[in-house]
Order: sequence, then C-alpha cells, then structure tokens
Amino acid sequence: MSDFDDETRLSAAGDGAWTGTVHEAWNIGANPNGGYLLALAVEALRRTCPQHPDPLSVTVHYQRPGLAGQPCRVEVTVLRTGRTLTTARATLVQDGGARLEVLASMGVVTADAEPMIEPPPPPMPAPDDCPGRSGDEQGVRLATLDRVDIRLHPDEARAGSAGQAQVRGWIRFRDGRAPDPLALMFFVDAFPPAVFGMLGRVGWVPTVELTVQVRRRPAPGWVLGQFRTVDLSDGRLIEDGWLWDARGRLIAQSRQLALVRLAGEAAAGHAAPASR
Amino acid sequence: MSDFDDETRLSAAGDGAWTGTVHEAWNIGANPNGGYLLALAVEALRRTCPQHPDPLSVTVHYQRPGLAGQPCRVEVTVLRTGRTLTTARATLVQDGGARLEVLASMGVVTADAEPMIEPPPPPMPAPDDCPGRSGDEQGVRLATLDRVDIRLHPDEARAGSAGQAQVRGWIRFRDGRAPDPLALMFFVDAFPPAVFGMLGRVGWVPTVELTVQVRRRPAPGWVLGQFRTVDLSDGRLIEDGWLWDARGRLIAQSRQLALVRLAGEAAAGHAAPASR
Repeated sequence: MSDFDDETRLSAAGDGAWTGTVHEAWNIGANPNGGYLLALAVEALRRTCPQHPDPLSVTVHYQRPGLAGQPCRVEVTVLRTGRTLTTARATLVQDGGARLEVLASMGVVTADAEPMIEPPPPPMPAPDDCPGRSGDEQGVRLATLDRVDIRLHPDEARAGSAGQAQVRGWIRFRDGRAPDPLALMFFVDAFPPAVFGMLGRVGWVPTVELTVQVRRRPAPGWVLGQFRTVDLSDGRLIEDGWLWDARGRLIAQSRQLALVRLAGEAAAGHAAPASR
Repeated sequence: MSDFDDETRLSAAGDGAWTGTVHEAWNIGANPNGGYLLALAVEALRRTCPQHPDPLSVTVHYQRPGLAGQPCRVEVTVLRTGRTLTTARATLVQDGGARLEVLASMGVVTADAEPMIEPPPPPMPAPDDCPGRSGDEQGVRLATLDRVDIRLHPDEARAGSAGQAQVRGWIRFRDGRAPDPLALMFFVDAFPPAVFGMLGRVGWVPTVELTVQVRRRPAPGWVLGQFRTVDLSDGRLIEDGWLWDARGRLIAQSRQLALVRLAGEAAAGHAAPASR
C-alpha cells in the first residue's frame, strides 16, 4: 500500500455515500490541495462504478475550502450507465457543508492505444538536473512535498523567472507508488500556478473550476507536466495543463478557471475555494 | 426579439424548474445541436440567478439525444451563492428522461476589461472572402444554417482540405441579433468538427462533455472561431475552441471530449449523446 492509497481510502456508507478522512498530509498552507479533494471524490465514483473506473472527463467546482484532518462524506448519484460510459455526479461534504461538486463521465482508458494525433512532450532536462520544488515561490508550507517529489525546469523554478506564464516539471510519489488515473487528479493541481512564472508570486490563485480528461493509463515512473496561462483578464485566468508519462505519451489534459487575488486584496466570491 | 431568444425562452414552473421547447430549427440532421441544448440549460441558470447571469465556466455531459420539436423541462439546483459567484447544476429533461446534466459557476463578465494576457485572433480573410458553410462536409442537413451565417476559412471549407485538425470561421445570427454570453453556448458547437479538416468526413463525432468559459461580453458583429484537435487516441478526441469578437478580443474558450465513430461503426456508450 501507499500513502496516497491510504489517504484516499473510503468506506461504503450505504445509499451511494462513502466516508473517509481529508488528511493533513495533502495541505497547501492550512488548506487541503484542490486536486487531492478531487481525488477523494473520484475514488468514490470509481468505487461506485468499478466497470468504468477511469475519469474520461471530470469537472469539479469548488464551493468551500476543505477541512484538513476532518472526516468527509462523498455522496454519489449515477445519472446514466451505458456499455462504455457512466455519467455521475458527486458531492464532497464535511461538517455538514458541501465543499465541492463533481460531474464526470467515467470509462476505461488503456495503456497501449496508438494515438492518431498526440502533442509531444516539451524539451526537459532529466529530473536529476531539475531543482526540487520548495514552496518558497508560494510563500507557504507545502505539506504535499513530503508525499510527492516535484522537480521544476531550471528556468522556471523561481517565481517570475520564466518570463512567461508557464511551468514545466517532473512529479512522482516519494514512496514509489506508480501513477494511475486517480493519481493524475492530484498531479494536475500539484505544481505552482503557471502565472507565477510571469508575474512572480501574485498572492492567491484560488481555483473556481477544474476539468481533467484522462487520456491513457500511465506507464510507471516520472510524470512530466506542462502548465500554461495564455488568458488572464478581469481578475480571472485559465490555466491549461498536459501530463506525459515516462514513455512520452500524453496521459491527461487539464484546464482550470481561477481567480487572481493580488497580495493583500480582499477575498471575493466563495471564500478560499481550494488551494494548491 | 430574435429567433434565438424566442427559441430559448423558458417559463418558470416552480420549485426551481423551467419549461420550454426544443425547437427543430437548431437541428443537425434529426437531432438538436448540443450547443443549443446547453443554451436552454444555461438560460434556466441565468433566470435562476439574475445577479450572476454569465457562465464563467459551464460543463455539460450529454446522456441521451434531445427530442426536436418537443417540450423540455430544466431543473435547477443552486449549490452555493456568494458575492461574485453562484454555483449551480441543471438537468434538461424531455419525455421523462434526463438528456443532459450541467454544472456551472455563474458570475458577471464585462466588455471593457483590459487583459493582462490574451491570445490574439488568428489571421483570417474577411467574411465576404470566406465561403458559407453548407453542411456538405458533414453529409447531413443543417437546419441551424437558416439561423446562423457561418463562413469558413477558404483553406478549411471542405472536409480533409485543411491538412490538419483545424477549422476557423466567422459566425453571426442571420436576423441581426447581437452575440452575448448565452449565444456563445451555441457558437462554440456550431462549426464542423475540427478533425474533419485532417481526416475528411469521419462518420460521427458525438460529444460526451463540453466545457465553456465565457471571458468577456462580446462586441456586436461577427464572431471569429478557431477550433483544433491535437489529441485523438483510442476512439476519443479533445477539441479546443477559442472565440474572438469583432474587436479582436477573446470572448470564450471551449473544450470538448468527443467519441470518434467511423462511418458504419456501431454506436457505443450512450446512444448519440449530442449532435452538431
């Protein structure tokens, strides 16, 4: 077993509900990472429809911050099951309040399909030639770095150093657990916000909505991520992400809508929807 | 009033529900266009939270094809309302069966914000120098072309002619109705599938999931769309879309996961989730 498996484990509670714990090990500062919370919800979906265990497309809208170290309940509603797809929604609840709402089409991804069209991975130095993520660029303690090893491109390791809103890096679990579709829910949200590469540390970039499409079952080994923002206006940005496995195959795409709150600016919208 | 307004109009039915009609004028072949169905659901969301009328991010998963010419009911559940965001879900039901499920964060977009980062529109000939979309590239009658004028890039107007999975074009309502965030729900799904540009007519590309982020209130006039697929594997593709208004400002981004069914291949998954 692995830390990630232990800390996303759920128990059936009947009537489509699952219970577990939001573990503090996946915190960014005082709040649970948004991708980890999504993984908990997706684990409930996987358990509900084991014939369709992989999120072909999953969207989460964050409503309230998760409560680290507290129990959680995930309520699943299956909307439709077909031969190759199950569409379902899930709500993660803590302390009586819904924290996030998920809508997904679940199915099966394979490891070996030959792609007709596929974006190649970007050029990257080997992991040993890339500095580890420290969290300094974000100014908060990243408990998650005890769980995952993240190596950033040398040109993009310090906030503001990339000259563009981009971050590239390697990621893997420290305990050797292999990547799988569930792990990708966390991996797409584990890197520094790409906009830090251009603007430096901007304060706070809470995610409103995150969508992940898993495209392939990953090979064992390091996962390579690339994240970019080409669209920042009116206090909101869109960040696109791509993940490739150790064989250089595209395994997931992601996109998120996030608010950009400059340091010292008052929180608006929902309070601290999620953190990373 | 306009055709689009008339044909997306809903009446309050109490308990968060809205009723209307899925009009045949927005058909692709025998089935309603998926973007038009999404517009009906988003209209119900707009009416439910008029202080937050714009879909900052909206995701739809298609479960069953819509029924053209038949009444519909949209059931809305507000999940959370804050000062600048309302998160809500909507289910469009016809003939007792859920057709699509929507999850959205609604808010307010403005027309005049100065973007910090923005992708420029691609080079395009003027609308008068671009051939009108005929539907020939899809092999079905497109009733929607009586409602919207679509002009395709001359290099991309015939299936297979682009040499890559891309389509660019202009779109506007034929009756002069100005574009607005609701119209963009349809505009992002009104062009030929980008993959036709590379493969020719491939049969059938039913949408599983579509996400749209509205970024800005559009200026009056033509809207320019660009759609691209850089990822097709294992019978599934992702198509990315961008819309710019007549001033060259980015007004929306879209992404959809679609199945690729070669001509003659049996339908799998949910039957004909949506059409365009």
